[in-house]
Amino acid sequence: MSKTDIDSLTELLSKLPALGPRSARRAVLFLLKKKQTHMEPLIHAMTNVMNNVRSCPLCGNMDTTEPCSICSDPKRDRSQLCVVADIADLWALERANTFHGLYHVLGGVLSALDGIGPEELNISSLIGKLQSGEVKEIVLALPATLDGQTTAHYLTDIVEKYPVEVTALSHGVPVGGELDYLDDGTLQAAFKTRRKI
Amino acid sequence: MSKTDIDSLTELLSKLPALGPRSARRAVLFLLKKKQTHMEPLIHAMTNVMNNVRSCPLCGNMDTTEPCSICSDPKRDRSQLCVVADIADLWALERANTFHGLYHVLGGVLSALDGIGPEELNISSLIGKLQSGEVKEIVLALPATLDGQTTAHYLTDIVEKYPVEVTALSHGVPVGGELDYLDDGTLQAAFKTRRKI
Repeated sequence: MSKTDIDSLTELLSKLPALGPRSARRAVLFLLKKKQTHMEPLIHAMTNVMNNVRSCPLCGNMDTTEPCSICSDPKRDRSQLCVVADIADLWALERANTFHGLYHVLGGVLSALDGIGPEELNISSLIGKLQSGEVKEIVLALPATLDGQTTAHYLTDIVEKYPVEVTALSHGVPVGGELDYLDDGTLQAAFKTRRKI
Repeated sequence: MSKTDIDSLTELLSKLPALGPRSARRAVLFLLKKKQTHMEPLIHAMTNVMNNVRSCPLCGNMDTTEPCSICSDPKRDRSQLCVVADIADLWALERANTFHGLYHVLGGVLSALDGIGPEELNISSLIGKLQSGEVKEIVLALPATLDGQTTAHYLTDIVEKYPVEVTALSHGVPVGGELDYLDDGTLQAAFKTRRKI
């Protein structure tokens, strides 16, 4: 059975982060059964993204405009700069719709294990932004992992030389979260930073 | 943030059976980061499948050739016809590489709940194949669900008029399966059909 076209599509789909060989096969069958209503629009949307989306030279976000729609939005507060490890984090914060400054995507976190040093991250361009003097506050929205916190410390040391305030996301109980399921570290942090209501 | 191209791709991907909004977003980011090595080949493979893959008029399989590579393979045993509910089942049997006859895809099973009657399934073309007299055995490889077994009974009644043997897949303990996790029905079936070793 030489279903090479189907096979190669299945193989490519199975490499997507959330899919394995089995679910990729199911996705291909789904697409084959909905050629007009789903497969054609998907090809179209993917071609659009392929051709139109590029990395923003200012913040590292991906968007159809250059600079991205956040960097070019005059309503954004240019005195606040939120440093994130990955574009996914930037998108998550945008969905939360709580921060209205600009972003800076590091492109990862420092990791001795994965051999990621400061040169691999977008740190020099971050320093460039600090030198311009426009930034008053840097919000470090880095992962609450060991590597993330190491990166936060490293950045705090660098940023100290400039007249900016450095803040970080607070730790605590996730909204809607059961105490029962939380790790000790989070509970301790939430207890230590408890507040009057 | 008007990331409409990215949004529409995320939305389309999230409709695939194995993906939700969150994993679709992760898939889009993955593709954005691997434009040349992954996104471009994926668009190419999907376009190939879109243009080249069609439904086989004989068995209902999807393939780039018409009739499909199974129906047009002279080495296949034309006296054996395996009836399956869905193309996914046909592919699963082909991967198992144990059946070397032809297939017939019903396109579903009878279901009072979902309002699927005999007219919705490819039954008339099945009868056509029986009338040709070439088929000696019909293997009913239908789901071991209530609807699947109802469909099997319905087909057995129809097929009785023709000089063909009707068989069905046997029930039993899945290879590699723990007895502990099996349902009573399977265990009972496996016990009833126990064999000498």
